[in-house]
Amino acid sequence: MSLNEYHMKAARIVNVNEPLQIQELQTPKPKGSQVLIKVQSSGVCHSDVHVWEGYYEGIGGQPLKTTDRGVKYPLTPGHEIAGIVDSLGEQVEGFSKNEKVLVYPWIGEGMCPACRIGEENLCDKPRSLGIYNDGGYAEYVLVPNYKYLVKIGDDDMDTDISAPLSCAGLTAYGAVKNANLTPDDNVVIVGTGGLGLMSIQLVRAVTGARIIAMDIDDKKLQVAKKEGADIIVNSKKEDPIKAVIELTDKLGADAVIDFVNATKSVEADMQFLRRRAKLVLVGLFGGELRLSLVNMPTRAYKIIGSYTGSLQDMVELVSLAKRGVIRPVVSNRFKLDQAGEALQMLKDGKIIGRGVINP
Amino acid sequence: MSLNEYHMKAARIVNVNEPLQIQELQTPKPKGSQVLIKVQSSGVCHSDVHVWEGYYEGIGGQPLKTTDRGVKYPLTPGHEIAGIVDSLGEQVEGFSKNEKVLVYPWIGEGMCPACRIGEENLCDKPRSLGIYNDGGYAEYVLVPNYKYLVKIGDDDMDTDISAPLSCAGLTAYGAVKNANLTPDDNVVIVGTGGLGLMSIQLVRAVTGARIIAMDIDDKKLQVAKKEGADIIVNSKKEDPIKAVIELTDKLGADAVIDFVNATKSVEADMQFLRRRAKLVLVGLFGGELRLSLVNMPTRAYKIIGSYTGSLQDMVELVSLAKRGVIRPVVSNRFKLDQAGEALQMLKDGKIIGRGVINP
Amino acid sequence: MSLNEYHMKAARIVNVNEPLQIQELQTPKPKGSQVLIKVQSSGVCHSDVHVWEGYYEGIGGQPLKTTDRGVKYPLTPGHEIAGIVDSLGEQVEGFSKNEKVLVYPWIGEGMCPACRIGEENLCDKPRSLGIYNDGGYAEYVLVPNYKYLVKIGDDDMDTDISAPLSCAGLTAYGAVKNANLTPDDNVVIVGTGGLGLMSIQLVRAVTGARIIAMDIDDKKLQVAKKEGADIIVNSKKEDPIKAVIELTDKLGADAVIDFVNATKSVEADMQFLRRRAKLVLVGLFGGELRLSLVNMPTRAYKIIGSYTGSLQDMVELVSLAKRGVIRPVVSNRFKLDQAGEALQMLKDGKIIGRGVINP
Amino acid sequence: MSLNEYHMKAARIVNVNEPLQIQELQTPKPKGSQVLIKVQSSGVCHSDVHVWEGYYEGIGGQPLKTTDRGVKYPLTPGHEIAGIVDSLGEQVEGFSKNEKVLVYPWIGEGMCPACRIGEENLCDKPRSLGIYNDGGYAEYVLVPNYKYLVKIGDDDMDTDISAPLSCAGLTAYGAVKNANLTPDDNVVIVGTGGLGLMSIQLVRAVTGARIIAMDIDDKKLQVAKKEGADIIVNSKKEDPIKAVIELTDKLGADAVIDFVNATKSVEADMQFLRRRAKLVLVGLFGGELRLSLVNMPTRAYKIIGSYTGSLQDMVELVSLAKRGVIRPVVSNRFKLDQAGEALQMLKDGKIIGRGVINP
Repeated sequence: MSLNEYHMKAARIVNVNEPLQIQELQTPKPKGSQVLIKVQSSGVCHSDVHVWEGYYEGIGGQPLKTTDRGVKYPLTPGHEIAGIVDSLGEQVEGFSKNEKVLVYPWIGEGMCPACRIGEENLCDKPRSLGIYNDGGYAEYVLVPNYKYLVKIGDDDMDTDISAPLSCAGLTAYGAVKNANLTPDDNVVIVGTGGLGLMSIQLVRAVTGARIIAMDIDDKKLQVAKKEGADIIVNSKKEDPIKAVIELTDKLGADAVIDFVNATKSVEADMQFLRRRAKLVLVGLFGGELRLSLVNMPTRAYKIIGSYTGSLQDMVELVSLAKRGVIRPVVSNRFKLDQAGEALQMLKDGKIIGRGVINP
Repeated sequence: MSLNEYHMKAARIVNVNEPLQIQELQTPKPKGSQVLIKVQSSGVCHSDVHVWEGYYEGIGGQPLKTTDRGVKYPLTPGHEIAGIVDSLGEQVEGFSKNEKVLVYPWIGEGMCPACRIGEENLCDKPRSLGIYNDGGYAEYVLVPNYKYLVKIGDDDMDTDISAPLSCAGLTAYGAVKNANLTPDDNVVIVGTGGLGLMSIQLVRAVTGARIIAMDIDDKKLQVAKKEGADIIVNSKKEDPIKAVIELTDKLGADAVIDFVNATKSVEADMQFLRRRAKLVLVGLFGGELRLSLVNMPTRAYKIIGSYTGSLQDMVELVSLAKRGVIRPVVSNRFKLDQAGEALQMLKDGKIIGRGVINP
Repeated sequence: MSLNEYHMKAARIVNVNEPLQIQELQTPKPKGSQVLIKVQSSGVCHSDVHVWEGYYEGIGGQPLKTTDRGVKYPLTPGHEIAGIVDSLGEQVEGFSKNEKVLVYPWIGEGMCPACRIGEENLCDKPRSLGIYNDGGYAEYVLVPNYKYLVKIGDDDMDTDISAPLSCAGLTAYGAVKNANLTPDDNVVIVGTGGLGLMSIQLVRAVTGARIIAMDIDDKKLQVAKKEGADIIVNSKKEDPIKAVIELTDKLGADAVIDFVNATKSVEADMQFLRRRAKLVLVGLFGGELRLSLVNMPTRAYKIIGSYTGSLQDMVELVSLAKRGVIRPVVSNRFKLDQAGEALQMLKDGKIIGRGVINP
Repeated sequence: MSLNEYHMKAARIVNVNEPLQIQELQTPKPKGSQVLIKVQSSGVCHSDVHVWEGYYEGIGGQPLKTTDRGVKYPLTPGHEIAGIVDSLGEQVEGFSKNEKVLVYPWIGEGMCPACRIGEENLCDKPRSLGIYNDGGYAEYVLVPNYKYLVKIGDDDMDTDISAPLSCAGLTAYGAVKNANLTPDDNVVIVGTGGLGLMSIQLVRAVTGARIIAMDIDDKKLQVAKKEGADIIVNSKKEDPIKAVIELTDKLGADAVIDFVNATKSVEADMQFLRRRAKLVLVGLFGGELRLSLVNMPTRAYKIIGSYTGSLQDMVELVSLAKRGVIRPVVSNRFKLDQAGEALQMLKDGKIIGRGVINP
């Protein structure tokens, strides 16, 4: 253990929008079904930036405060956590010290209808690590139950590659599942950053649908093409609405997965939906949409909010990654005391791919 | 046949927003798989009013014109049609003259993905009777294929009771199916007119969910209570948001089916949704909603446009009605030459329940 | 507490097929997330008889031993448990002493794919109460996690009525869900004992399907009729195959739920299935079926084994029972020291309905 | 047209189990919605052999006669048909002469619940081409409705490659859909002939599951490996039960798709099923299985008969094939007058892959 046996370092948000502080905290001691994980990799996610800034963008430019949603500061952020088992509560079964694991962070209270069917990510009163409880920007993290751990084996996967599966990968996968695609569908992927690229891999791995990737950056679109997009559309250079309508025999897209989810992108989405289409909203950019109500029944649209994924989804993702069916990519690595810098770089759009902190 | 053997009377919209005209038309002669039905009952539906007026209300008060959606005038409206088989094309099987039938009016082109799975109501290029083709405000109606006919037997159901099943009943049923309720769910039914009441009967018949009925009219709410609503809320007299939050242990509704679908009702709906809730939009009142985009993923909402139902749905409805599990009600009866008057009464809110024309 | 503070009485199977013994055991002390329940009602279930006898009937009359399936003796049987919270582990939340609860007994190991989606009843390595762990034929029972408790309120439901919901009710409900009925379906319920009757109530409450109830006992069939069966068939007095074929326009049943599941009943079932039919096997009578393999694809049958239900299913059942949509019935009451007698009566077919032990 | 304008050649089964005869028949003239197709490729399928022999194998070696199932002789077999549009009934829309099309042969009567949701392959009273109506072993085939035609374009797909999609491909696809796999599942594919190989491609294309391919022929297994099987098992050389149990961490397979479906193969399948497993029976080899009834509920197995697929499934397959996601292979080509020889070769196991007749 670090410093001395009872203390660990953590990079914390003490007040919203102020620089992160490196603090020394008591290292938790696992009881009952709890497990203490020594963090090896903690992904840096765009939603960490929102938690740091303290708000999302609501209707009419009004901020939606994180504190109104139950987030409490000081907080150790970080929900993409992979590491090794350090110590175990007395009721833990099936795990032993030093095993390499990925942590499922979207923990629920356990008693609501969503939790009862294993969709803790959609719990009425969530207790997610790194958001409502201290997370992975630290040397150690306490996981409340061993059932949230998924073994990633010794040889097959390193922790840097694995960590982003628990949010970036899972969010992409949850969105692809919500789109419920068939091989005859045309799906538009809006935004080809880390999540968009992962979703392209996943659409190919588990649906067989035809992929139209859309972005405003040609370089990203070239990567999207390489990852499996059938067609790419630069929505800055050509009219996205015309483009999709053309590419779909004038019928429109069967499904759209929008990883941006800002006013402008969703306004365009609504114009190239086929009758019966599913519009899956994933990104946290926010803002508002002026939705035509009568079009909802007559066009039979479904607008679906998609938030991360279930523990079972994460197990499926790990299975795909272990066999090389999907290939997550890490682009930037940071030390724990660079956590604030990492968030700033992400906010400034300077991380292409996924950043990971190695405490 | 009427007048002489080759002519029939029809009540038609010649120009939008002008009085209906009684015209004499050539009686169609069925060929191939077609069947000619002698209309006995033709329901008067609120969407007939929209087709007559020529528009729906869009965003910012802009009208959405029916002609922009492919409706052509002159048109014989009427899509809730029950009658007897008059004559048959040479390829028709399984039907014979004088059999009593209910007509499925939501006919598709037959080649799109929706049609291929029997959801012709959601066809890319719909050919619905009474909207895109001449309908039931006439002595005879031509049905393009015998597969769109459902026998209603001799004794069990009269045509007046049956006719509204093909739209009012079907729309309520499709909406209930889209809400995908479990017995542990709280569902709010917004609007307790004919469709709302039918949906209450259907929620009880096939889901077991707990029903909160909402309206601004106490009399209607009393009927809703009698039809099976567990709780009633007058949203004019009490704050609907507070009411639903209270009635659901501060969690919000698991599902809302909005048969009004106007700006004001949907704005309220959005405030009493539980996380993960489904909001099913059915009504054609229209207008716009300012939708908070970031709330869609974080709250994991699903907004679902629901439009009528499939032929299989209608067969299921007929089965329920035959056994008395649901009990459709007809309140007003009209002659064919009173069709215009019927539409005017409906527009003016003077028909409580369902009106039916008997040509 | 009974006797002295540290001991409780339990009716136990010490050796298979020998009389139950009343033993004094140490009263468990709940730790972590565990809860100790003071048992008020413990249902007597036919599967308790199998656990007592030590086997099920397999192929060719060969016994399938319970010990080969991991059951260990001595064992306190009893998996239909309702009572009051006695004491709580230090991590328990949301429950307090003396609250009335129903226990979900189909507890899993927690880490398999079934557990991860809340279907612990189908766990790879089950730990069910009363089968793999000590159950409710005792003054107290230890529940390993508070999430397995469902509050049944003070006034609304007594424990005798509630207890059988966790197996008899749940098994019927799970079977009805597996049959996946629509209102246009004909479903045959084979066996109109306690589970069959409950399934009839549930088919009516949540599906709208037409019910054909089948048994060899006219009295039971009369009750089935009263509970909502549309048609009854005495398969001793008339040929069940002919009867169902007649009743279904010569098409056969869309679904069969067989609560007997013996060679003879299933052989008959196979003869009155409609193409595409679902045959849901529930009972534990056992024996073998000679299945024609080529008929499976050409007739597109689905044979579905149905085993109890999930925790979420039980919550839904409790919701239905609280509102009186379903009405469980208890017919016989026993003291704890009559447990052996109760099992013998059940084995001899002398309990019509459901027996409950009140320790 | 051939011979003269009014006659065409067809290879017909005049009496079961006698050599096929080349007959001259009147060329049908399409009416109404019918289309006449000039056959270019007609696949030779193992079920043609059963139709020729006149029976399937039932329980206890008893034959199940095709005539008892409504097949009438003389019959032109052939249900895998691709060709060009020759002439059109007067109600046909959207097709024109000389367009290249694949024919959906699993035509239903149109009025049953299966037909109403587009699953005509599961119709109560099927009218499949080549089985209940004259099929593709002929110069021309009459298709009763243009909606059964799927365009395969000019450049993208030749008719030889396309024809087997309508049965071999579709049956594999329907089976894969019935297995309802997730990426964390282990699926065993029993039989790696044409259908098995196609199913391996499809499992990879649309599910992400881990594939264990099983056969008794090492050469076929090597091809299976190349097509994407993760693991291969020669069930002649090693104990298939031990092998699968080992390969699945002693848990058993999550799903099995058995393209043989003979007594011996299914007996083995039953021994390596995981709790909750799905066993999808596809092959028409036949025979009987002695099924342990009590295991069905306690192990929660699902045995699912899978028969071809729907028109929508075929459209999805064509979409996958056009984009090269799946790659059907044709191994043998025959002239029309070699049709009998082709059937004999298939019966004798001398066609590895798929044979196609080019009339």
